[in-house]
Amino acid sequence: MGELRRDPVVGRWVIVETDRPKKPEDFEYEQYIPQGGLCPFCYGNEFMTPPEINCFRDPGTGANTPGWQVRVVANKFPALQIEGNLDRRGIGIYDMSNGVGAHEVLIETPYHNKDIPELLTQEIEEYLKMCCIRSADLKKDSRFKYIMIFRNYGSAAGASLEHPHTQLVALPMVPKNALEEIHGARDYYNYRERCIFCDMIRQEIQDKTRVILENKYFISFCPFVSRFPFEIMIMPKQHSGYFCHMSEDEVVALAQILKDTLTKLKKVFENLSYNYIIHSAPVNGEADVEYYHWHVEIMPKLTQVAGFEWGTGFYLDPTSPELAAQYLKAAKE
Amino acid sequence: MGELRRDPVVGRWVIVETDRPKKPEDFEYEQYIPQGGLCPFCYGNEFMTPPEINCFRDPGTGANTPGWQVRVVANKFPALQIEGNLDRRGIGIYDMSNGVGAHEVLIETPYHNKDIPELLTQEIEEYLKMCCIRSADLKKDSRFKYIMIFRNYGSAAGASLEHPHTQLVALPMVPKNALEEIHGARDYYNYRERCIFCDMIRQEIQDKTRVILENKYFISFCPFVSRFPFEIMIMPKQHSGYFCHMSEDEVVALAQILKDTLTKLKKVFENLSYNYIIHSAPVNGEADVEYYHWHVEIMPKLTQVAGFEWGTGFYLDPTSPELAAQYLKAAKE
Repeated sequence: MGELRRDPVVGRWVIVETDRPKKPEDFEYEQYIPQGGLCPFCYGNEFMTPPEINCFRDPGTGANTPGWQVRVVANKFPALQIEGNLDRRGIGIYDMSNGVGAHEVLIETPYHNKDIPELLTQEIEEYLKMCCIRSADLKKDSRFKYIMIFRNYGSAAGASLEHPHTQLVALPMVPKNALEEIHGARDYYNYRERCIFCDMIRQEIQDKTRVILENKYFISFCPFVSRFPFEIMIMPKQHSGYFCHMSEDEVVALAQILKDTLTKLKKVFENLSYNYIIHSAPVNGEADVEYYHWHVEIMPKLTQVAGFEWGTGFYLDPTSPELAAQYLKAAKE
Repeated sequence: MGELRRDPVVGRWVIVETDRPKKPEDFEYEQYIPQGGLCPFCYGNEFMTPPEINCFRDPGTGANTPGWQVRVVANKFPALQIEGNLDRRGIGIYDMSNGVGAHEVLIETPYHNKDIPELLTQEIEEYLKMCCIRSADLKKDSRFKYIMIFRNYGSAAGASLEHPHTQLVALPMVPKNALEEIHGARDYYNYRERCIFCDMIRQEIQDKTRVILENKYFISFCPFVSRFPFEIMIMPKQHSGYFCHMSEDEVVALAQILKDTLTKLKKVFENLSYNYIIHSAPVNGEADVEYYHWHVEIMPKLTQVAGFEWGTGFYLDPTSPELAAQYLKAAKE
């Protein structure tokens, strides 16, 4: 019989297959192998993107030319646009507003074929620092209420360009998924006067069965209520609401655990597509984020979401997180 | 500039592309063409499925033999199992319970290659009647709190078997997505003493721009806040919480509008995969469902869900529902 598990933060139920769990070799997934070809994010093609917003580059090199390590540009086809006012209004029972926001692309590396496992830890640190810098900068615009950093790796994860890149979206309202986490965490905090994520970390460290990796500042584990097989969460041990408030030491430790975790995932599943998302507290709203704790969610693309999931918000996880963690723990970095 | 629209029921925001909207010819989607081959749901292979739970069949034919029109069997690989107790319990901060529930498969037709547009209206009526019968029967089990009927058509929609079939899942708790709709509808009802779905129907009929089809009992339209391009909603005009409480006349009218709507979708996009989901009120709980109104959601598989949607619950709709409705309205049935 399967097991029903309830997410303590958002209240989502997941059916975990325990009797006939799927092992790594049981999954058929779309293999992702970058094809190369003309790429606007590669060295020498800087003219193909909108002008750079920020960049780490070699001294003496000019903007929008080679010589960079991490490069941030506006998304050429932005979901939202930076100019204008929100202008919220009603149309009968419906509500709408103008599509005001920011949509940036962080080109993580000049190398077309290097995913995070292939980068040096120092290169990942630079990339993470740039994410923090852009995040902190967009926060200054009081129209924005939420800043969302995410990465689509591989075609099955929805990446339309092969060259490794991360996207940053500043939204004029706190999105529904973030609100659910925030409300869940707040309810718990109001009841217990403790952060639910801190409690989760404590329980995971004690329990050990779902932990993949741990260093001084971070823990990576398969969440007890995983929606997807081999789902992974990376959490800072130190309570903090904002990703961009990380200390220098934490950036170094995150680069390390991110690289090692994704390397393990790659060892278990070659050429796998995945998404990761950085969940951070809303900005320009309530100052008090005592109850929220930022974290990274990694979602490997091994299964499809179908009518059942769309209809219910229930998920079917064919591999228990305990089994997934076993495989990931055993994989050599 | 895109437009932000807010779902009046669940509060979800969607970015609708209005400046450079995608037209049908702009979509690249996975074409779905059934391959045939040995099929457990075809005539003569009844022994390959678990024994039938219910069936419309020719007089004189025996159970689990040919001669049927619609056939219901237990899912061979059920997500949940019918035996046992829920036994809710905690593990530290986490919650869990046994995987109790029902998971049935309704084989809609003996024909391997006939999707709903190819069936006769009378055949669709039989299929819908069977959905109602099974729904009403499962409702009697007081352990179940929600009954969910959904259909995955085509591989991109997650269908693992080609033969047209619908799934029915009885759940021991009201799932998150249903709760969100119910809470949103209740808040509106408490504030206005009106059903939000009834108001929506009234506004859609008056506005006309998103309506695809209408008959005496039903309306099909592209919702103002579509998450996906060419998303369609079918709603009964008569207020009712439960799908399975449909009158005979309503079953006939639903069969007609479902067939015609899906035929139009097929004219615009050949070999397209889609999911549909019947949203009905929870069972065995509060008796009062004054505020809820059952409906069908059709989700064509034209786009991929990526990091942005997973992270935020925001959706990007590249085709406005007004434009989608124009194309669907113009397509000949």
